[in-house]
Amino acid sequence: MDFDALFTTQLDALKAEGNYRYFAELERKCGKFPKAANHGEDGVRDVTVWCSNDYLGMGQHPKVIAAMTEAVQRCGTGAGGTRNISGTNHDHLLLEAELADLHGKEAALLFTSGYVSNWAALSTLGSRLPDCVILSDAGNHASMIEGIRHSRAQKVIWKHNDVADLEAKLAALPANAPKIVAFESVYSMDGDVAPIREIVEVAERYGAMTYLDEVHAVGLYGPRGGGISEREGIADRITLIEGTLGKAFGVVGGYITGSAALCDFIRSFASGFIFTTALPPAVAAAARASIRHLKESGDERRRHQAQVARLRAELDRAGIPHMRNESHIVPVMIKDPVKTRMLADYLMEEWGIYVQPINYPTVPKGTERLRFTPSPLHTDAEIDRLVVALSHLWKQCALAHAVA
Amino acid sequence: MDFDALFTTQLDALKAEGNYRYFAELERKCGKFPKAANHGEDGVRDVTVWCSNDYLGMGQHPKVIAAMTEAVQRCGTGAGGTRNISGTNHDHLLLEAELADLHGKEAALLFTSGYVSNWAALSTLGSRLPDCVILSDAGNHASMIEGIRHSRAQKVIWKHNDVADLEAKLAALPANAPKIVAFESVYSMDGDVAPIREIVEVAERYGAMTYLDEVHAVGLYGPRGGGISEREGIADRITLIEGTLGKAFGVVGGYITGSAALCDFIRSFASGFIFTTALPPAVAAAARASIRHLKESGDERRRHQAQVARLRAELDRAGIPHMRNESHIVPVMIKDPVKTRMLADYLMEEWGIYVQPINYPTVPKGTERLRFTPSPLHTDAEIDRLVVALSHLWKQCALAHAVA
Ligand SMILES: Cc1ncc(COP(=O)(O)O)c(C=O)c1O
Ligand SMILES: Cc1ncc(COP(=O)(O)O)c(C=O)c1O
Repeated sequence: MDFDALFTTQLDALKAEGNYRYFAELERKCGKFPKAANHGEDGVRDVTVWCSNDYLGMGQHPKVIAAMTEAVQRCGTGAGGTRNISGTNHDHLLLEAELADLHGKEAALLFTSGYVSNWAALSTLGSRLPDCVILSDAGNHASMIEGIRHSRAQKVIWKHNDVADLEAKLAALPANAPKIVAFESVYSMDGDVAPIREIVEVAERYGAMTYLDEVHAVGLYGPRGGGISEREGIADRITLIEGTLGKAFGVVGGYITGSAALCDFIRSFASGFIFTTALPPAVAAAARASIRHLKESGDERRRHQAQVARLRAELDRAGIPHMRNESHIVPVMIKDPVKTRMLADYLMEEWGIYVQPINYPTVPKGTERLRFTPSPLHTDAEIDRLVVALSHLWKQCALAHAVA
Repeated sequence: MDFDALFTTQLDALKAEGNYRYFAELERKCGKFPKAANHGEDGVRDVTVWCSNDYLGMGQHPKVIAAMTEAVQRCGTGAGGTRNISGTNHDHLLLEAELADLHGKEAALLFTSGYVSNWAALSTLGSRLPDCVILSDAGNHASMIEGIRHSRAQKVIWKHNDVADLEAKLAALPANAPKIVAFESVYSMDGDVAPIREIVEVAERYGAMTYLDEVHAVGLYGPRGGGISEREGIADRITLIEGTLGKAFGVVGGYITGSAALCDFIRSFASGFIFTTALPPAVAAAARASIRHLKESGDERRRHQAQVARLRAELDRAGIPHMRNESHIVPVMIKDPVKTRMLADYLMEEWGIYVQPINYPTVPKGTERLRFTPSPLHTDAEIDRLVVALSHLWKQCALAHAVA
């Protein structure tokens, strides 16, 4: 059987619909963020990155780099085993304690990524709690969807951020079935924020456990970077808070926090936690340094919000339509995969501005976009330059302007 | 609903059957491998680690440490995004080229772990190849099992390492269905090696693609560390070779290698590849340095095999029964979870020897064991001391000796 032909056919279909992906090949340069070198077709050149999820540039923070370097020198490059078989290092436990403290929970559990933490935690809860029903927000991330799917638990999808719909769906379920309400705080592609207090209150009324993904909020919101749940003062009423070490914290890895029994349960039964090499101690040490810094310093968060506001104001002034939301994510909708790629190519080639075209399956077809993520390290001049570039583009391509 | 009570009930059941897991808390110390500090109940002390999967101690190799340190200083601590959205770094592509070369394949694709590479690749192949049937060795790793399960493709389990059974099962399937034969080279818990040439030949006869997990063999076997498939000169006939960067290479991460179309297919469609932050460039750089070193140097492999042979010979001399196999993994069967833990506790407390008790679900119930992994850095004296300790234990606990 000609497997390559089967693969190529499906890849050709992707290409035909404009959804084939070309990765930009970057070289991050310490201390230069948001600048990076881009390996393009005609050589290497410096570009300004406008779509990083290292939201605060912490991946280049001197303290974080120092912590990682120190731990590599001290412990070496890897953990040497799964958590159970020689892979648990002192640095992992320090990090788990730090994370539990960040969210005001009894315990935390580290995973190799945020993806794996969602997938492993939801698939374990859904499969091991008898007759469990998972109520999943329609906008949930792939990692949650796959975890729920893998659990084979009954799944009920509620309308995105719609508390009334959630309540109706909870009310329709048997009172004695264990229920999990799974949702995010900041949705990564639209940047909208869930009404988490209302969701928690409804869930409590129906005795459901709450599962909150704070991947795009940890480090960024709340007085200590505990996310939207910290900002809203409601973290203690959420059963499980999940997060990543790979976005605002600038490293890699994922975690859950919750009661000691909950974390021990996932630790003991989750295939995706058990059967895999632990994160390098140096990754844990770097992540911990980043979290500790952001617990104490509000400067990065303040400057982040200021630059986000500045970009929005400049876009408004230029009449470039962007999606309104109360987060740090600035989506500019293009609604066509081919056009979105063309615009991104033009920005890269003509302006040295890198923003990845966002297409299916990351967003639904027909909602393709450019997604800008200003950081505290983007200067005012860089913001102004981006808006000038977009204005040119909008004129040149006769794209619709926002109506004042 | 009292979720904690539900969790506790299941944890109590684990405890009652002796399968609850206690993780040893180590501090790896660069340059001291296989020694590490152990945080025990009565303080911190140095122990000799006898169960690491950093099989060659490459996690503490000066070249690997230097590469990681250099890249952290150069690029920072994280990739800053998913592979598609600003996360692809030059170091990732260099590593992928290195891996493709290692296995003599057109292309390679990096994942955050070996677990994720198996899970993502198999679930994507199984779900996207219409009417696909996956023929899975009965001994396959959890990550493969979960990937196959997630794909919802038809699954046929063949008897462990039994080529005749595989052939019978292939023969019984419709000729025109795409078939994937999934297996490992070195099985991690029994240390037995698959008859991969025979498996490949049967698969070829039935037009099936071959999916080989070389996680416990890469770096360790073959003239350049390409695994058992390299040693047997059959890598070019295997469709997909999967491996890890977290065991013999001493870092963290996973990968697949194969044709360009195959890797592009998984790159384009695998949720577990797409929706997650890329590995830090520094991890990629460290892994690459490790692979490059082991491609050129056979010293570690030779010394590894010598120390494995020495441990086996000493065990034989002392009459300690161990499982025969042709790999570097030395299992001593105890066949009871409580006894296995007792023995491991005694070795740790009385001798400062750390070997994790291996229990369910890592091995089937009733096959609990101590699993020793001698490295090139275990001295003759350390091997002798381990065997003396085991001999004491065997006498003290009246355990069965091997019959000469
Ligand atoms: C909402 C959400 N959850 C989880 C993840 C996965 O986290 P990680 O990148 O650490 O795997 C992502 C993005 O990658 C995400 O957007
Ligand atoms: C056979 C096998 N495949 C895959 C894996 C997963 O690799 P990783 O530790 O890189 O996740 C393991 C062990 O962890 C394994 O034993």
